[in-house]
Amino acid sequence: MILNDKDIIDLEQRYRTAFINSLAGFRQAVLVGTKSVNGDTNLAIFNSLIHLGANPALLGLISRPDTVNRDTLQNILDTKEYTLNYIQAAHYEKAHQTSARYAKGVSEFEKAGFKELYHPSCKAPFVEDAVVKIAMKFEQSIDIPLNGTILIIGRIMQVEIADSLVGPDGFVSLSEAEILISQGLDAYFVAKAVGRLPYAKPTV
Amino acid sequence: MILNDKDIIDLEQRYRTAFINSLAGFRQAVLVGTKSVNGDTNLAIFNSLIHLGANPALLGLISRPDTVNRDTLQNILDTKEYTLNYIQAAHYEKAHQTSARYAKGVSEFEKAGFKELYHPSCKAPFVEDAVVKIAMKFEQSIDIPLNGTILIIGRIMQVEIADSLVGPDGFVSLSEAEILISQGLDAYFVAKAVGRLPYAKPTV
Repeated sequence: MILNDKDIIDLEQRYRTAFINSLAGFRQAVLVGTKSVNGDTNLAIFNSLIHLGANPALLGLISRPDTVNRDTLQNILDTKEYTLNYIQAAHYEKAHQTSARYAKGVSEFEKAGFKELYHPSCKAPFVEDAVVKIAMKFEQSIDIPLNGTILIIGRIMQVEIADSLVGPDGFVSLSEAEILISQGLDAYFVAKAVGRLPYAKPTV
Repeated sequence: MILNDKDIIDLEQRYRTAFINSLAGFRQAVLVGTKSVNGDTNLAIFNSLIHLGANPALLGLISRPDTVNRDTLQNILDTKEYTLNYIQAAHYEKAHQTSARYAKGVSEFEKAGFKELYHPSCKAPFVEDAVVKIAMKFEQSIDIPLNGTILIIGRIMQVEIADSLVGPDGFVSLSEAEILISQGLDAYFVAKAVGRLPYAKPTV
């Protein structure tokens, strides 16, 4: 099929959302842990993690003001601290459950069945079972006026991961730990290795 | 291991780049096709595709001014048109080869072994073998002053994909077509399905 921009606008709304969101491809599933100024904890699944740079080590997240993730955004802006947690694919149902619209003050940790873990480095809660635990410090938010989304940029303050998953060259073997991948709003996957390649050089 | 922000700064540069880049997780591998104002074609692999919204249908890419992808950025800014191409994992070596630093004016299509395909909807070349072909119109670039990267935002002008890959609800089954996933600078994967879940509702 070939759809042009007008065809896309004419699609039924739910169909269009599922189509464009899944068309955007595979992405890292990440559970974002935050704590409100009142001390309420919050956990939300995001699929918009962006690598911005290694030095300084910056990661981005896209937030929409109109979604369930607005508590997460508010907590990040208020407290400047948040955690990024990668989990094994076996926990995908619990991870998906964090996307439900719970009332403010209800913790998705408890409702979805994840245990909070704290480390002196960060006021926000980590997911105890997470294979990768990253403490983040909020650096900047950038408004995207075209559709009202916000790019949240943070700096990595701490990374916790098993030694066995980090190779001698620094490569983090997430596939070995069967880390959860997402696509669209509701589809989950694990990665099957195809190969690693040397730095590409021009050929004659 | 636990690394804090100072430990990360102290890492050897190549190790840090590989570590942080691979730590950012799995992401869609996309070949970006462009044409310069002089008519030279360019093809570059990106792993920073971002879903920004379905209506309007907006996708983002992160570009660094200091990388091989600067030709792509310049062509997008000059011509306002570009293509996004998803390929099967079997072509991962050719896809990786597009990241080599070829001289300006040399086409990565030819050097990596991909055929150009044109459609009246777009001046930029598509990858003939791509399973998903998306024509994009440049909308806006947003500078990220923290590290000099640029968020390129474009609107989807056309999508070409086999009918058989699009479900009745609009979901695009990229895994069925064994579409290429990337992690870090040099690792490639395919997706193995874990499951799809219904819209999450709050539980009691």
